[in-house]
Amino acid sequence: MAKYVYRFGGGTAEGSAAMKELLGGKGANLAEMARIGIPVPPGFTITTEVCRHFYQNGGEYPEGLEAEVRAGIEFLEAQTGRKFGDPENPLLVSVRSGAPMSMPGMMDTILNLGLNDESVEGIARKIAPRFAYDSYRRLIAMYGNVVLGFKDDRGDPFDRLMQEFKKEKGAETDLDLTAEDLKVLVERFKAYYRERGKEFPQDPWKQLWGAIGAVFQSWNNERAKVYRRLNRIPDDMGTAVNVQTMVFGNLNERSGTGVAFTRDPATGENVLYGEYLLAAQGEDVVAGIRTPKPIEELEHEMPEVYSQLLEVRKKLERHYRDMQDLEFTIEDGKLYLLQTRTGKRTGFAAVRIAVEMVREGLITVEEAILRIDPAEQVYQLLQPIFDPEEKKRARVIAKGLAAGPGAATGRIAFFPDDAVRMAKEGPVILVREETSPEDIEGMFASTGVLTARGGLTSHAAVVARQVGKVAVVGCEELEIDYEGRTVAARGITLREGDWISIDGFTGEVLEGRVPTMPSEVIQVLIEKTKAPDEAPIYRLFAELMSWADERRRLGVRANADKPDQAEVALALGAEGIGLCRTEHMFFAEDRLPHMQKALIAKDPTERIEALRKLSTMQVEDFEGLLEVMDGKPVIIRLLDPPLHEFLPKPEEEEKIQQIAAEFGVSVEELRARIESLREMNPMLGHRGVRLGITHPDIYEMQAEAIFRAACRLKKRGKNPYPKVMIPLVAHVNEMARMREMVDQVAKRVMEEEDVELQYQVGTMIEIPRAALTADEVARAAQFFSFGTNDLTQMTFGFSRDDVAKFIGEYIEKKILPDDPFATIDARGVGELVRIATERGKETRPDLEVGICGEHGGESRSVHFCHEVGLDYVSCSPYRLPVARLAAAQAALKRIDK
Amino acid sequence: MAKYVYRFGGGTAEGSAAMKELLGGKGANLAEMARIGIPVPPGFTITTEVCRHFYQNGGEYPEGLEAEVRAGIEFLEAQTGRKFGDPENPLLVSVRSGAPMSMPGMMDTILNLGLNDESVEGIARKIAPRFAYDSYRRLIAMYGNVVLGFKDDRGDPFDRLMQEFKKEKGAETDLDLTAEDLKVLVERFKAYYRERGKEFPQDPWKQLWGAIGAVFQSWNNERAKVYRRLNRIPDDMGTAVNVQTMVFGNLNERSGTGVAFTRDPATGENVLYGEYLLAAQGEDVVAGIRTPKPIEELEHEMPEVYSQLLEVRKKLERHYRDMQDLEFTIEDGKLYLLQTRTGKRTGFAAVRIAVEMVREGLITVEEAILRIDPAEQVYQLLQPIFDPEEKKRARVIAKGLAAGPGAATGRIAFFPDDAVRMAKEGPVILVREETSPEDIEGMFASTGVLTARGGLTSHAAVVARQVGKVAVVGCEELEIDYEGRTVAARGITLREGDWISIDGFTGEVLEGRVPTMPSEVIQVLIEKTKAPDEAPIYRLFAELMSWADERRRLGVRANADKPDQAEVALALGAEGIGLCRTEHMFFAEDRLPHMQKALIAKDPTERIEALRKLSTMQVEDFEGLLEVMDGKPVIIRLLDPPLHEFLPKPEEEEKIQQIAAEFGVSVEELRARIESLREMNPMLGHRGVRLGITHPDIYEMQAEAIFRAACRLKKRGKNPYPKVMIPLVAHVNEMARMREMVDQVAKRVMEEEDVELQYQVGTMIEIPRAALTADEVARAAQFFSFGTNDLTQMTFGFSRDDVAKFIGEYIEKKILPDDPFATIDARGVGELVRIATERGKETRPDLEVGICGEHGGESRSVHFCHEVGLDYVSCSPYRLPVARLAAAQAALKRIDK
Repeated sequence: MAKYVYRFGGGTAEGSAAMKELLGGKGANLAEMARIGIPVPPGFTITTEVCRHFYQNGGEYPEGLEAEVRAGIEFLEAQTGRKFGDPENPLLVSVRSGAPMSMPGMMDTILNLGLNDESVEGIARKIAPRFAYDSYRRLIAMYGNVVLGFKDDRGDPFDRLMQEFKKEKGAETDLDLTAEDLKVLVERFKAYYRERGKEFPQDPWKQLWGAIGAVFQSWNNERAKVYRRLNRIPDDMGTAVNVQTMVFGNLNERSGTGVAFTRDPATGENVLYGEYLLAAQGEDVVAGIRTPKPIEELEHEMPEVYSQLLEVRKKLERHYRDMQDLEFTIEDGKLYLLQTRTGKRTGFAAVRIAVEMVREGLITVEEAILRIDPAEQVYQLLQPIFDPEEKKRARVIAKGLAAGPGAATGRIAFFPDDAVRMAKEGPVILVREETSPEDIEGMFASTGVLTARGGLTSHAAVVARQVGKVAVVGCEELEIDYEGRTVAARGITLREGDWISIDGFTGEVLEGRVPTMPSEVIQVLIEKTKAPDEAPIYRLFAELMSWADERRRLGVRANADKPDQAEVALALGAEGIGLCRTEHMFFAEDRLPHMQKALIAKDPTERIEALRKLSTMQVEDFEGLLEVMDGKPVIIRLLDPPLHEFLPKPEEEEKIQQIAAEFGVSVEELRARIESLREMNPMLGHRGVRLGITHPDIYEMQAEAIFRAACRLKKRGKNPYPKVMIPLVAHVNEMARMREMVDQVAKRVMEEEDVELQYQVGTMIEIPRAALTADEVARAAQFFSFGTNDLTQMTFGFSRDDVAKFIGEYIEKKILPDDPFATIDARGVGELVRIATERGKETRPDLEVGICGEHGGESRSVHFCHEVGLDYVSCSPYRLPVARLAAAQAALKRIDK
Repeated sequence: MAKYVYRFGGGTAEGSAAMKELLGGKGANLAEMARIGIPVPPGFTITTEVCRHFYQNGGEYPEGLEAEVRAGIEFLEAQTGRKFGDPENPLLVSVRSGAPMSMPGMMDTILNLGLNDESVEGIARKIAPRFAYDSYRRLIAMYGNVVLGFKDDRGDPFDRLMQEFKKEKGAETDLDLTAEDLKVLVERFKAYYRERGKEFPQDPWKQLWGAIGAVFQSWNNERAKVYRRLNRIPDDMGTAVNVQTMVFGNLNERSGTGVAFTRDPATGENVLYGEYLLAAQGEDVVAGIRTPKPIEELEHEMPEVYSQLLEVRKKLERHYRDMQDLEFTIEDGKLYLLQTRTGKRTGFAAVRIAVEMVREGLITVEEAILRIDPAEQVYQLLQPIFDPEEKKRARVIAKGLAAGPGAATGRIAFFPDDAVRMAKEGPVILVREETSPEDIEGMFASTGVLTARGGLTSHAAVVARQVGKVAVVGCEELEIDYEGRTVAARGITLREGDWISIDGFTGEVLEGRVPTMPSEVIQVLIEKTKAPDEAPIYRLFAELMSWADERRRLGVRANADKPDQAEVALALGAEGIGLCRTEHMFFAEDRLPHMQKALIAKDPTERIEALRKLSTMQVEDFEGLLEVMDGKPVIIRLLDPPLHEFLPKPEEEEKIQQIAAEFGVSVEELRARIESLREMNPMLGHRGVRLGITHPDIYEMQAEAIFRAACRLKKRGKNPYPKVMIPLVAHVNEMARMREMVDQVAKRVMEEEDVELQYQVGTMIEIPRAALTADEVARAAQFFSFGTNDLTQMTFGFSRDDVAKFIGEYIEKKILPDDPFATIDARGVGELVRIATERGKETRPDLEVGICGEHGGESRSVHFCHEVGLDYVSCSPYRLPVARLAAAQAALKRIDK
């Protein structure tokens, strides 16, 4: 028979850390801690299998569960010497969710379960009346919220009743209420139940089953679903339920609760980092309602507990070999761990912790590489910081806790919905009293988050770090007026939509829009304004990159059109140019008129003249680029866009008049020309190689410019390696004809210049047909580069320009797991990449095959490229570090989430 | 060593009819005729291999050719007892092209080769002076035209010199010129050579090699290249050269020349059919310059020769088992065959000959099926004829020879270029004195061809029959004034652009636009205005179709949207509806407002109300269609086009005003709605299943209407079989969601109506991704139908709306062999069809797989569908006979041209 309940406590456990799928992260780690001798209150975990059964069977539990739960409670009774439901010495438990993947704060929790009208008296007698009624009113409120879903149009009714009562009593804080007061409050809470036709259940078993059901139900609440979608957590994973003996941080002044990280999650510094509150239950810290004290103060307040905590820290890091995020409770001077898990961290911290743990001998280089998220963590190290000069001039209006490093500047939004809307127009800083799980979509949309309350482990801080947002939290100076939509501090009042800047390294809040400057990595590598020795973040980055480069198989190239971009690319590790788009060479102000002339000219000599002028200019462009990349391959794509892009749109009356006048044609003629170039579906239109076939002179001009430039460099002792790329090939005959043309031009130019060049002619594979017939195409093409943007458009039949009309709904409704323009669709588009690679190499075993779509800098796509056997990926220069690390991870066969 | 020369003559031959690739059609058949004892003048054939060598080696001949040609001439000398170059008794030869596939009149010929200043005297002495000089002047002219390419801006110089000389002499016809006159003409011709710095070569060997080279050169002249492109003949096939002993149809009055078909090539009637001219060389007949006599008259003029010809006819048909097209020459009362080949014929003749040859026991049913071109020949039987009532009212202005059956009406064009241009606007009748190979593009563009000169085997007649054009030739009453662009007869003068009608069954030419009516087949099957017994063409058609149906494996269905179309489809053999497009159900005048209301409505109940109204109307549509197709599958595709098609375009100011007023929204709101639906690339936009996902109520409404209709029919004792098709699926999740929706609607409606229905839910495979992931898609889809129109668009990245901008050039430059929208691209698009079929059937072995793109009625595509293992093809109703025959041919494994 299946086992649904796993016990832990008393120095041992039925589960272990390896059983996360079944027991959830929390349950598995509680079991693991129990096993390695860390003090945890005894408890048991109901498996995720029960959750799945619950959903597949309309809320029914599997047979046998009830008996196992009953036996679990008996185990707790034996461990604690208390009795569930006993009026004098009752066993009280917490009931918490715990999914296989962390979903902090998304699901429900109930504490102090087991109390009733009778046993609250027992506790009052045995421990203290105030503690007893404080615990009881919390249980009744939580049970009402969570199990019965009490909520009215004014929010949480129990919170409101509490506030009203405090006002009545003239109490400033909860602590000002006496045991008698709390007893009255309990009655008011129960009266609220009765008004709703309900009773607070006195039977602890009824409480327990109600709580278990509510936790399972909470797996599918709205915010949990949104969180899973954003974090790619499968809906059918399910949550476990942990039933655990209560320990009371609110028992007395020698009690308390806290959260801590074994290293600083913002910077990665190797210190215990956290905060605590005495005489409080855990929820008080996490919710950010009371601002807790920094963990260092515990050393003075409870030195013994503090040193115990340092011991636990060491033990857990040794055991888990990673930075841990802990929850603990102190009950009457005794430390209990309630949770440990691998801690979320910023990119800065991730890199520092990984590199330092290697140095400490705790992990291997490979583990370090695999631990860092290329896109979200490494990329952070390249993000801008404030320009110190500009920052000096800006006015600091407040200072809070630096919770997410980086520099962010944006317009103020006070509500998550506004943030989502305003973010479409430009960067937004979400300013809140505190954040809660409902706010995550707004946080995702914002560039930075600023809160007035909450500590470094508050919701805002945790989420910001996790998703790489700049965050300043607990900035208590701020006075936020939600209704008036203003925030004020130090005499300054800012309104919704005003600019504000926050420094996630220092916690400073600045008025206005403070200009940023490149990150330390960029300053060292590209701006060269900082020496490597003065740049610790750069040094960590460099070490990590060198490790990655030693381990990756995939080459990395950059998509860059101009010499300055190529220089950035080289500094960031490019081994070549994977895509030089030549469009800018036609659109630049001094060139467009020549191109237009070529398109409008009725006289062929005029047309040739115009193209010749363009050619001369392009020689310089190519010379610059090839010189920077000396010795490395440079793939230059011939003209791709449809010709109508070079002429005004039909509605641009003035431009048409002007151009007609300039080139001496009638407005009617020009209009007719524009009309003749118009297309219903330009994406599938007359562009790319189709122009090369029908307007061969443009491609010839470009080829000539490329070889002319390369010859000049060669004469100057350089070693240029141009690779001419033909876009939009669908049929080998297109490629064959272009290959012939380019080879002829190359031959002629090399003869004229008396120079021998190394070069190749290849194609972009971006049309399904080219992929399917790659064996044929490879007869003419010397290399392939997958243009996965267009390939995705045509494989899905999605127009990138129009897909926004439905792609959001597609992802929300889980029709598609991801936006295929962001992450390569391995099953469909990827199948074509696989087919083309195989078939291409059949014909030409030394065929070079790479990717130059925007997927080249996206880590899951890089993994795909590695697996499918591509030779390199090419991406925008600033994505190169992401690609390098992702390529190393792929080589280390990391199974990505 | 390779053999380059094959001899024939004297009752035997080195080649045979099986060696067409090597010897060309003419050479192979001359050899074959020699073998079976038919009188042919002895000769030899230089192989096509020499032609290929010639082109691959810059005009060089292979080693050994010269010796073989020399030996060949010696063979002819031995056979004839004459000597090449002998002054007294010279051997004269013809040099003719002859490609493996017939290219009539496209390449060059030289006759009377071997004559020079000396031997012409010998012939004059031995035979007759006039004959000698007539032959000599022809040789010099042809040699000048063909070998030396003499042509000036006034056309053929020799023809001009001849005309001038005739005027000088007051001669009306060539025959009025005496031997002395012709001698003078020879001198003038030679003077023309000298003016151009040339001499007519006196050495017969020089003449011979010049002629051989010229024939090889003519393989690549412009008109030959155009002809090959239009007829899909590979450019690297090459031509053979036939060198053959001259026989002289112009020797005396007991000599002559003619062409004949073993059956009537226009109607297929089993009679000898042809024409001849006495005292003439072959060229005179083919060129259509003199109108020859009908072959029957030969019986009176030369009864012995005529009966010999009937013998030859019988022998050749027995031997070749097909209708033959002959050229013959009578020299001094003796018959020689110069050529035989399978004769081109009209669709009417093709069907009649095939069916009758089966009845005669000459060929098998399978051979008959394989002999008929489905698209060009069977389709002709469905083409309209003149309405007899209307024709009675029309004025007959002339009568010529009925050379290509059918009825054609169109505007008059006198020049091929005009015909091509005017054909873009509507049907054209090309009216010419006579046609020549230069005119073929104009003939292709025209609906019908009318000539004033030439017989039933003239160029115009042959080409028209071959390509299925209606033709009336040799209509000598016509007075054509090219300069004034008029044609006159019986007192009526018509101008360029005026309407004219021609009856290819009777040879009548009618003034104006005479309305047409359906063909006999259509009258019997669909109009039911004629009984089968009174319709011989129908009977032939029906017999052929029944043979085809017995032999095909592929099913045939029709693309039809409405009951009347479905009835036509049934009559023409449809076994189901492969595609019912539901768009018309939204665009119809009484429905569009409801659809617009649904799209504009802000109030959901208004929207639902509008959709409900549409649903009621659609129930009737579906009921009608399902009733006609009772018991047969009917595939109904849910809404496909993007929503913006239902609203006015942004520039349709008036309509916008009107609709806004009608639906009580502001013009701004309506404009905003229109704008929100606008797309950059509508082909890749928000349509098909993407609407089904984002606007589920439209698809639900359609599904409800389908099942409601089916239930009603079932209650009336019918047996409807609807199959719901989801368009534009790219991902299995789209299909799965729609399947679920349709199944739910079906379940609900069936419960409400208390009826059990047979139905299926499937998808159109028209997106590359769906094809690539067909194994997944088939999990949700119960059938596949390939939408090869869209699949071609996306596989090639060609927008069907825009492809005209370059597809012509692509085909001309041979980048693509065919327009992939006309003939399925087997290698690329076909690969996806193959992949999808295989993968789909892996998941669901009983998956029904068909095609409903326009390729379904195109014969080569039908072959592909057969080979790839599809279950059926679906095409427009009138293409069904084409599909049925093509499917039978595919099953008989015909290798298509």
